[in-house]
Amino acid sequence: MSETPRRGRWQTPYTLERLLEVAVRVFTERGYDGTSFQHLTQASGLSRSSIYHHVESKEQLLRLGLERALEPLMASTTEEGATTGRALDRLSYLIKRNVEILAAELPYVKLLLSVHGNTETERWALEQRRTFDKVIAGVVQEAIDEGDVRADLDARTTARLLFGTINSLAEWYKPQRGRKPDELADQICAMILRGIQT
Amino acid sequence: MSETPRRGRWQTPYTLERLLEVAVRVFTERGYDGTSFQHLTQASGLSRSSIYHHVESKEQLLRLGLERALEPLMASTTEEGATTGRALDRLSYLIKRNVEILAAELPYVKLLLSVHGNTETERWALEQRRTFDKVIAGVVQEAIDEGDVRADLDARTTARLLFGTINSLAEWYKPQRGRKPDELADQICAMILRGIQT
Repeated sequence: MSETPRRGRWQTPYTLERLLEVAVRVFTERGYDGTSFQHLTQASGLSRSSIYHHVESKEQLLRLGLERALEPLMASTTEEGATTGRALDRLSYLIKRNVEILAAELPYVKLLLSVHGNTETERWALEQRRTFDKVIAGVVQEAIDEGDVRADLDARTTARLLFGTINSLAEWYKPQRGRKPDELADQICAMILRGIQT
Repeated sequence: MSETPRRGRWQTPYTLERLLEVAVRVFTERGYDGTSFQHLTQASGLSRSSIYHHVESKEQLLRLGLERALEPLMASTTEEGATTGRALDRLSYLIKRNVEILAAELPYVKLLLSVHGNTETERWALEQRRTFDKVIAGVVQEAIDEGDVRADLDARTTARLLFGTINSLAEWYKPQRGRKPDELADQICAMILRGIQT
């Protein structure tokens, strides 16, 4: 933290970062709609006004939480490994990056995967996910066109199944114990990429 | 329906079946914890006492909803196709049956996948899912032992990824339009089973 602790807000035990962590956990457990402001005050131990000191609304906390997952995910699609070389290699790169991001930002990815679309922020997140899915489907289609991926599989369904597999990690993966993200990514690539290759 | 409409309960527009359908939709949208009895009366158009005419509690509705998914899933593991023949064929059978059940009981499978474990019923459902996962991991291990599935992949992780892929269908699959369950199951088998075979 580069902020100096001169102003009162930085002396409180809860910074925005910590509030966000708590809020995202409650949103994921109760669902965003099922979370009242009171749930947030209870879980964080903060008063209503302390929370309003950090954010304007419950929905802003949702947005900040979703950005934590969406920003690296969207950014990964423009990284060098995702934009240069054969489509099959780019797909492999995107799978590995995705597993890494999921492991690094697990609570935020979980929140993203639980979003329904009842608010503007949720609809924005779903739109971002759709854009991401289209990019992946495009890469799968290119890999088919380049003759590396089987043409009998529909690109869109393959892309969805591929990232469905990755997203399912969020349900059981514990980054603290068990296999490392790169080992898991290798296993997914071994399993699925081999299955779709010509 | 084999019941004669003599008794009053069968003349109401809402049977237990319809109430269950509404409750499961609300549970999935709001989360079970986020659903109050008032949400159920609002969504169903039924009074509190009408609901209590059909069930004893909110939790009983959850249980009935979860059973709709869990009963066929658990039953599939003892069907002939899942218990005779080579392990790889049994695995293929289990994948196909799972996709079929997911498509046939989609709202109930979605509910099952959204369960957290805060109540006894939820913990029961999670325990059932763990039992199911163990059966699948066992079949994968047998397929490895029989030399049909690659030994470099850990059976438990492979089983989880396999059924993670299937469960991810719940997020986007629309049974009314698009591909039929058996086509999807074939694609999943083509993609994943080929990827894990020796």
